[in-house]
Amino acid sequence: MSEDVLIQSKELFEICIRILTRTGLQVNDAFTVAESLIFANLRGIDSHGVMRLPVYVLRLEKGGTKIHPNIKIIRERTATALIDGDSGMGQVVGKYATELALKKARDSGIGFVGVKGSGHYGAASYYTVKMAQEGMVGITTSNTTQNTAAWGGTTKIIGNDPLSIAVPYKEDNHLVLDISMSKVSGGKIKLAAKNNQKIPFEWGLDKYGKKTDNPNEIINGGTRLPFGEHKGYGLTVMMEILNGVLTGAGMLSQIISWSKHLEEPTNLGHCFLAIDIESFMDKIEFQKRLDLFVNEIKTSPPMEGLETVFLPGEIEAAIEKERKERGIPISLRTWNEMLILAGKYGKHI
Amino acid sequence: MSEDVLIQSKELFEICIRILTRTGLQVNDAFTVAESLIFANLRGIDSHGVMRLPVYVLRLEKGGTKIHPNIKIIRERTATALIDGDSGMGQVVGKYATELALKKARDSGIGFVGVKGSGHYGAASYYTVKMAQEGMVGITTSNTTQNTAAWGGTTKIIGNDPLSIAVPYKEDNHLVLDISMSKVSGGKIKLAAKNNQKIPFEWGLDKYGKKTDNPNEIINGGTRLPFGEHKGYGLTVMMEILNGVLTGAGMLSQIISWSKHLEEPTNLGHCFLAIDIESFMDKIEFQKRLDLFVNEIKTSPPMEGLETVFLPGEIEAAIEKERKERGIPISLRTWNEMLILAGKYGKHI
Repeated sequence: MSEDVLIQSKELFEICIRILTRTGLQVNDAFTVAESLIFANLRGIDSHGVMRLPVYVLRLEKGGTKIHPNIKIIRERTATALIDGDSGMGQVVGKYATELALKKARDSGIGFVGVKGSGHYGAASYYTVKMAQEGMVGITTSNTTQNTAAWGGTTKIIGNDPLSIAVPYKEDNHLVLDISMSKVSGGKIKLAAKNNQKIPFEWGLDKYGKKTDNPNEIINGGTRLPFGEHKGYGLTVMMEILNGVLTGAGMLSQIISWSKHLEEPTNLGHCFLAIDIESFMDKIEFQKRLDLFVNEIKTSPPMEGLETVFLPGEIEAAIEKERKERGIPISLRTWNEMLILAGKYGKHI
Repeated sequence: MSEDVLIQSKELFEICIRILTRTGLQVNDAFTVAESLIFANLRGIDSHGVMRLPVYVLRLEKGGTKIHPNIKIIRERTATALIDGDSGMGQVVGKYATELALKKARDSGIGFVGVKGSGHYGAASYYTVKMAQEGMVGITTSNTTQNTAAWGGTTKIIGNDPLSIAVPYKEDNHLVLDISMSKVSGGKIKLAAKNNQKIPFEWGLDKYGKKTDNPNEIINGGTRLPFGEHKGYGLTVMMEILNGVLTGAGMLSQIISWSKHLEEPTNLGHCFLAIDIESFMDKIEFQKRLDLFVNEIKTSPPMEGLETVFLPGEIEAAIEKERKERGIPISLRTWNEMLILAGKYGKHI
C-alpha cells in the first residue's frame, strides 16, 4: 500500500487551479476541471480525481487536448443538440453540454445533448449532480477505449462506458448512481495484482479468452468482463451506440488511449439528458413521494452485517461529508507529481 | 415438461382478437393487445405472450382493468407529457404513450412520456421496436410489483422493472435490448423447482435472507436478487423512481399483484423516450456507422463453443424468423385455456 497524505479540499482545489491556468487554460475552464476532480476525490471516486491531473496537463502540453477549443453546436432542434467539442478538455465540453441540456429542459420539459470531439470527462456524476441541483433528473454516459469483452466474446471489444443518473432529493444529498459497465474497475484489478491477491473468476479473461483468478493475466493481454453478464453487456452496447455511433464521435477501435497517445485527439462521445421534474408534478409533491420511497427502502431489513440498506450515492455522500471535514487522502506519489507541476508552472510550494 | 402445440402466428392472432373483442374491448385495442402478445411469443419472450391472456380477460371481467378507459394527457410541455391511463390495458395505454413520444420526437428531436394509472404492458420491446421502425432510438421502462431484494437487503422491496432500448438498424432486424432488473425471471426459478433442479446461489435469497440454491426456498417467502449486484440494484432504484415516483403511479408496496387482485386497478407507471436519429445525423450516415460498429463486434473472436458474438436482440430475431415459418410453441395448458375462452365468448374452435 502506498502512503497517503491528507489534503484539505480547498488547498487541493487551489493547486489544481494553479497548475491548470499555467498551461494556458482560461480561469473558468480551469475552475471547471478542478471542480470535477475535487468532486470525485471528495466522494471517494479517486480514480477520477487529481491523480488524472498529470496526464491532463501532458495532453494540453502535447496538443492532444486543445487549450482554447472552439466548442460549437452543429445540429440543433427544440429539445436536442449535437455539439462538437473540438478536442477541448472533457470537463469543459461536458459542462457546456450540461448547461445546454438544462436550458432545453427548462424550455421544453426535457433536453438531450450529444457530444463528439471530446476528451476524458472525469466522474460522470459531476454532471448529473449539477442537473439534480437544478431540480432535474440528470443522466449522462460517455464512451471509452476498448477495455471490456462482449458477453460471449474473448477480447477487449467495447468500452466500460460510465453511466450516471441523479435524482434531486435533499440539498447536497441527491440520489446518485455512478457506475461503469465493466464488472470492476481496472484500478481494482491492478491493486489485486500489486498485493498478489487472487480475484473472482467473474472479473475477467486471460489472453486466451479463459476466465482467470490471476489479475496479472487480465492486465497482460486479457480483458475485463461486463457487469451483469448478458444484461450488462447489452446495456453497454446501447450506451456505445448512443455515445459513439449517434454522436459521430470515435467508436470502438477508433478510440485511442488518451493517456498514451498524448498528441492525438481522442474524439470521445458523451450524452447528457435533463428531465425537468416540474414537467410531471410540482417539486414539493415529488419530494414527498421520494421521501416515502426512500423511507420504505431504508426501513427494510438489511443483510446480516449491514446496518442499513443503501440507496445509490449514499455511501459516496458519507465519504464526502467525512472528507470535507478531515481532508482528502492523496497518494504521496500523486501529491509529489502535483507539487512538481505547481513548481514548474508557478511558485514552488 | 409440459407438452406444447405448434400454432401459426396468424391463427394465434385471430383467436386473441376473438377472445379480446368478446370482452367488449374495441377492435383496435384488441388488435394492439394481440399484436403485443404475438410479438412476444414470436421472439421467444413467452412469459409475455398469450399465456397472459386468461388473466387479462379475468381483469377485464372483474373490473380491475377498464374496457373503455379515458386515457388523457394531464401535463404537457413541448417535448414531454404525463398521461393518466385510467386503468386501461397496459398495451393500449402504452401504445398511446409511444405514439405521443414519437410525435414529440418528430417535432422537437426527442419526446419523453410518463404514464400513471396503467396496467401490465407486456413485452417492453414491443414499444421500442415500434419506435425503431419509425427511425427513432426507443427506450421504455415500467415498474412492477415488489419481487426483488435491494443489494444488501433481504426482502422483496423493489420491482424487477423491465428496460428496453431499441436502435433502428435493418428492416425487421433492429438492435433490441429487453431486460428486467432481476438476475433471472420468476419463470426460470419456477421451472427449476418443477424439475427438482438446484440453482446458482446468485439467483435469490430464502425467507431468512440467506442465499440459497433451492428454488422452492425463493418461491416460498424468499426473494429474487437484482442483476449485476450493486450496479444493477442502483439502476433498478432509478427505474423505479422514474416509473413510480416521477409519474405519480403506484410505487413499491403500493403496487398490488395484478394477477391476484383482479378487481383492483394496478396503477402501474411507465416511461417512453423516443430520440430522433435525424436530430444528430442523416439516417444513411447513421446506418453506415452502425454497420461498422456491428461488423467490428460480430467479427471479434467468440468464446469456445459459440459460433459468434451476439448483439442485443439477435437471438430473439432468429427465434422470430423460425417461429414465423414453423409456428409458435404454446403449452397445451395455455392453448386449452384459450380454446375455452374462445368458446365462451365466441364459437367453439
